[in-house]
Amino acid sequence: MKEFTVRFDLGDKAVQVPSGTLLSEAAQLAGIDVNQPCGGQGRCGRCAVQILDGTVRRRSTLRLTTEDVALGYALACQTVVEGDVDVHVPAQEKIERRLTTDLTVAEVRVPSDYLFSADQSIRRVKLNLSEPNMDDQTDDLSRLLTALRQQVGLAPVTVSLATLRKLGGILREGQWEVTALLDTGTEVGEDLQPARLIDLLPGLVADIEPIWGAAIDIGTTTVTVWLVDLVSGQVRAQASEYNGQISRGEDVISRIVYAGKNSGDEELRQLVLATINSLIERVSQRAGEQAQDLSGRTVKAVVAGNSTMIHLLLGIPAASIRLSPFITAVNQPPLLTAQEVGIDIHPEATVDCLPGIASYVGADITAGVHASGMDLSEKITLFMDVGTNGEIVLGSEEWLVACACSAGPAFEGAGVANGMRATRGAIEEVWINNNDLEPNYRVIGGAKPAGICGSGLISLLAEMFITGIIDKAGNFNLHLETPRIREGAQGPEYVLAWKDETQTGKDIAITRVDVDNLLRTKGAIYAGYNVLAESVGVSMEMIEQMLIGGSFGKYINIEKAIQIGLLPDLPWDHFQFLGNTSVRGAYYALLDRKSRERITEIASKMTYIELSADNRFYDAFMSALFLPHTDLSKFPSVNGMFAG
Amino acid sequence: MKEFTVRFDLGDKAVQVPSGTLLSEAAQLAGIDVNQPCGGQGRCGRCAVQILDGTVRRRSTLRLTTEDVALGYALACQTVVEGDVDVHVPAQEKIERRLTTDLTVAEVRVPSDYLFSADQSIRRVKLNLSEPNMDDQTDDLSRLLTALRQQVGLAPVTVSLATLRKLGGILREGQWEVTALLDTGTEVGEDLQPARLIDLLPGLVADIEPIWGAAIDIGTTTVTVWLVDLVSGQVRAQASEYNGQISRGEDVISRIVYAGKNSGDEELRQLVLATINSLIERVSQRAGEQAQDLSGRTVKAVVAGNSTMIHLLLGIPAASIRLSPFITAVNQPPLLTAQEVGIDIHPEATVDCLPGIASYVGADITAGVHASGMDLSEKITLFMDVGTNGEIVLGSEEWLVACACSAGPAFEGAGVANGMRATRGAIEEVWINNNDLEPNYRVIGGAKPAGICGSGLISLLAEMFITGIIDKAGNFNLHLETPRIREGAQGPEYVLAWKDETQTGKDIAITRVDVDNLLRTKGAIYAGYNVLAESVGVSMEMIEQMLIGGSFGKYINIEKAIQIGLLPDLPWDHFQFLGNTSVRGAYYALLDRKSRERITEIASKMTYIELSADNRFYDAFMSALFLPHTDLSKFPSVNGMFAG
Repeated sequence: MKEFTVRFDLGDKAVQVPSGTLLSEAAQLAGIDVNQPCGGQGRCGRCAVQILDGTVRRRSTLRLTTEDVALGYALACQTVVEGDVDVHVPAQEKIERRLTTDLTVAEVRVPSDYLFSADQSIRRVKLNLSEPNMDDQTDDLSRLLTALRQQVGLAPVTVSLATLRKLGGILREGQWEVTALLDTGTEVGEDLQPARLIDLLPGLVADIEPIWGAAIDIGTTTVTVWLVDLVSGQVRAQASEYNGQISRGEDVISRIVYAGKNSGDEELRQLVLATINSLIERVSQRAGEQAQDLSGRTVKAVVAGNSTMIHLLLGIPAASIRLSPFITAVNQPPLLTAQEVGIDIHPEATVDCLPGIASYVGADITAGVHASGMDLSEKITLFMDVGTNGEIVLGSEEWLVACACSAGPAFEGAGVANGMRATRGAIEEVWINNNDLEPNYRVIGGAKPAGICGSGLISLLAEMFITGIIDKAGNFNLHLETPRIREGAQGPEYVLAWKDETQTGKDIAITRVDVDNLLRTKGAIYAGYNVLAESVGVSMEMIEQMLIGGSFGKYINIEKAIQIGLLPDLPWDHFQFLGNTSVRGAYYALLDRKSRERITEIASKMTYIELSADNRFYDAFMSALFLPHTDLSKFPSVNGMFAG
Repeated sequence: MKEFTVRFDLGDKAVQVPSGTLLSEAAQLAGIDVNQPCGGQGRCGRCAVQILDGTVRRRSTLRLTTEDVALGYALACQTVVEGDVDVHVPAQEKIERRLTTDLTVAEVRVPSDYLFSADQSIRRVKLNLSEPNMDDQTDDLSRLLTALRQQVGLAPVTVSLATLRKLGGILREGQWEVTALLDTGTEVGEDLQPARLIDLLPGLVADIEPIWGAAIDIGTTTVTVWLVDLVSGQVRAQASEYNGQISRGEDVISRIVYAGKNSGDEELRQLVLATINSLIERVSQRAGEQAQDLSGRTVKAVVAGNSTMIHLLLGIPAASIRLSPFITAVNQPPLLTAQEVGIDIHPEATVDCLPGIASYVGADITAGVHASGMDLSEKITLFMDVGTNGEIVLGSEEWLVACACSAGPAFEGAGVANGMRATRGAIEEVWINNNDLEPNYRVIGGAKPAGICGSGLISLLAEMFITGIIDKAGNFNLHLETPRIREGAQGPEYVLAWKDETQTGKDIAITRVDVDNLLRTKGAIYAGYNVLAESVGVSMEMIEQMLIGGSFGKYINIEKAIQIGLLPDLPWDHFQFLGNTSVRGAYYALLDRKSRERITEIASKMTYIELSADNRFYDAFMSALFLPHTDLSKFPSVNGMFAG
């Protein structure tokens, strides 16, 4: 097949590719990241590049104007090479790697009854072995296993080939005194895994030396790692970052599509591993350890995440998740080692991926339900995780039902022009003056603002609605007397911060497109919990508590969340914001076998209700695309406010 | 550090090395194999090379004459580079890769009661899974595990990440009909390993499709592979070859020394894997299968071999085997997968290394004892494996004691100038005319002779002794009237075949050095079984049967083996030659769980007696360095012959 040269930005980044190669593939070959939030389906228009010279064929120009095409613009994911080409990749389309400043270590309370030696599957035991001699020529492994049985009561214990290879050296280096790091087994599904030797250290290691574990939450948008001292149970450091896969699709569907093309699955696996491993390096530094030292001492990781994220992490094809009847390859992965998974901690560390229950209700939710405690409560509880997917669980200690309503990542700060995660520099709360429409805001960390996080967006949307900047359908009122409402590149917008007040030196505004995005997100969530409740015959009034997980920011204003119709109009004392419940559930499972077993129980007890085939969901969603809702009687407190 | 150029044979094979590099290391870097039978200790003199030009420093010139050194010869393993050097590697010192023609498929009898479905740990089960739908969204793995539990009664079953990755594709390709290949578990040591899914195939595979297993015997000198159809139990092909490690040391001690230097352990591991994998390719071809197809269907391997061979195969340091108190790292390795070990069969195939009992009594012996059946016999039995090490077991169904007497590889055809394995072209029996001292011999396969195998050497030694060519101390009688006795390069020798009768076009002779070698080997074996019997209070007369393993050739002449003092002077009907008992034991263990359990029992029952610290052994050895022995009263039948 004929080969052509594709040159980028008139520079030296040129690649040879066969005729018919997609420009997006050529860019990747050349080491240039081109945004593909829709997974390369030609839907989002975010991968537009400019053809300076040469012959290409455009399969689709959706999202490009006639003028764009005249200027040479083409969608990289929809355009194939048919001759030598010079391509310009617009700067704003190169992947924006956001630098985020994480919050300080969370003040996570260690369960008061936590006892390393009793609750933890990880054990560190000191062994005195008898030295071999001509009258006792027992082999090294049997000598070790006998000591484990006699001195610690553990048998059988499996030993990997890697450990066998260093066994003899360590026994002799330690002069027959050694410290064994073991995983004594975890009940996964119905099976108890046998005890396993993770590592063997020469000599008797002091009790004060730390042993580390990692609780990992892989969100579609954000990945979070907590570094835990397993002996004390304390979280010693935490860090979050956007999931590196985000440039290959903003939601799980786009990711699955991307994974199905060429070696997209391996690429996505490497991207999320890179994110996890850089977070592990970051928490190591924060805990004051050399990354390498800490890796060797981190002997267990518990992973929560939605089913697609877990499949992609493990390199398991996720295609069947996307297609009816929406089947996962695995809800409860077996215990693996860090080496098998590719996580840069001790290669023999146990990696325990928590159980999900369905394609769209994954381990993030079973972990979240556990963290929320709703499964031990007598109260009828509604639990929502407002992440990218928007999973909802209803129930109590006696029963649990769950559904998912693909809500999009708006409240995680993605998919909104000036959105960002709830970290330093994020606007987290907004007030707008009724008279002059001038805003006031609070920024996380007190810094100059860089963007708006989830709680800020809720707050802003409610304020704009209350002050009449937008109407109930999200239309901007362009007749109001303020320079802050203006016609922008993407249609009408409201400027929340002028460029001279911001970190970025650019105006921070919210646009009509952003508002529509937020309306769809809150509409999907509203529709989800309503249909879920309806399908089990529970009315909204019967709900006794509402627990909300997700990283909106610290100061969620319940009143405002109700005003926009995101949350049901219940008494304010019914609500509780729990933050990242997924990582918290993983943390509990990391610490404590009983917690791990409870998550297994939650998974087996929970009934999944499929909304995608449910017309009621579609109807409810359409009705909820308004502020707060087409039917104001569902929001008497908001209705009353207008009446007042 | 200063670097110099080492050039070999004035050709283009030149390497840059730092000052002080050993010539043997430089040669290896240049891809030139230099013989190091003694493991690079400067003991054997086989790595001599000629320095044509340049500066080197000889650490030792042991085995070189003053004249050799004057001609520029140096021991590659003892000579370091101190300037640019031109080196000549004499052709005869390059590694001799013997081309061997293996025997035809052994007529191994399948145990008459063998039943695949009952005896085999491997199972092939056909599963009909219900197709998922919106009312049954069970994940693929649970669906499979449920079918295994409900349709086959197997639970728990472990599934590897590799299999998980292809699970969904295979279920759908087979339209929810699949064939599972499982290992239902083997009792290894005290622990029963759980059932494990090895592979999953789309559709219902026909019962007549073969499933393969491999029985592997790793000898210090020779590696043997049997390819077994697990369904019928039949051995479909076999092949043997010298162990590729042989160029790095002829006995286990030299190998251990070599393994301890630089990355010698990894090199030895790769060498034996290359041998095993080439044998697997060869048996595939013989079974009429494409190597690749067969690899994928070969789901189990059972490995026997002495403890050093097993350690080196698995990359486990063997150093402690060599040093008092002679400790193995592991006598019973855990079950591994072919991928972990590096054997080119199905990557998820089970690799079961049989248990040894001590540094010098390994799995070859436990397997051999099982194959011999002595552990189920009421008779007091002496079992010998005349391999490189010469292990001996004495006992019955009630007790077993074992020892090892490092005998050397003479009867495996190594360490003797014209020695070879018992394959096509080997002289396997010899008669010498009492009057004219002309020989008669039989060659395996009826071809022209290429060398002499173990049985031929026993026969030849006895004939030379009986006809007076050599005396009881092995001295040649140079006064006899025959051109066949002559002074050769290595001292006196007897020509068994003139060059015009041979395959090689060279005389086949046995030298004084060979005779001494054979005397030491037979002396060590004799001393071994005598001291072993003595140490448990059994006299030679009490021995009711004598079973002999090892690949001497087909026609061992017991009379002649007694005449040279290799075997004790017992009635001829007490003796039985069993061939390669080690691979046969591995074959039984491969087929049948009960056999595997019996080998575990044998290992736990057998008592090891250490001879190396026993003065009686040294005394017995010295007395046995004669034909048949210093004390002729121990060999009345031989003594009587002379008297007559």
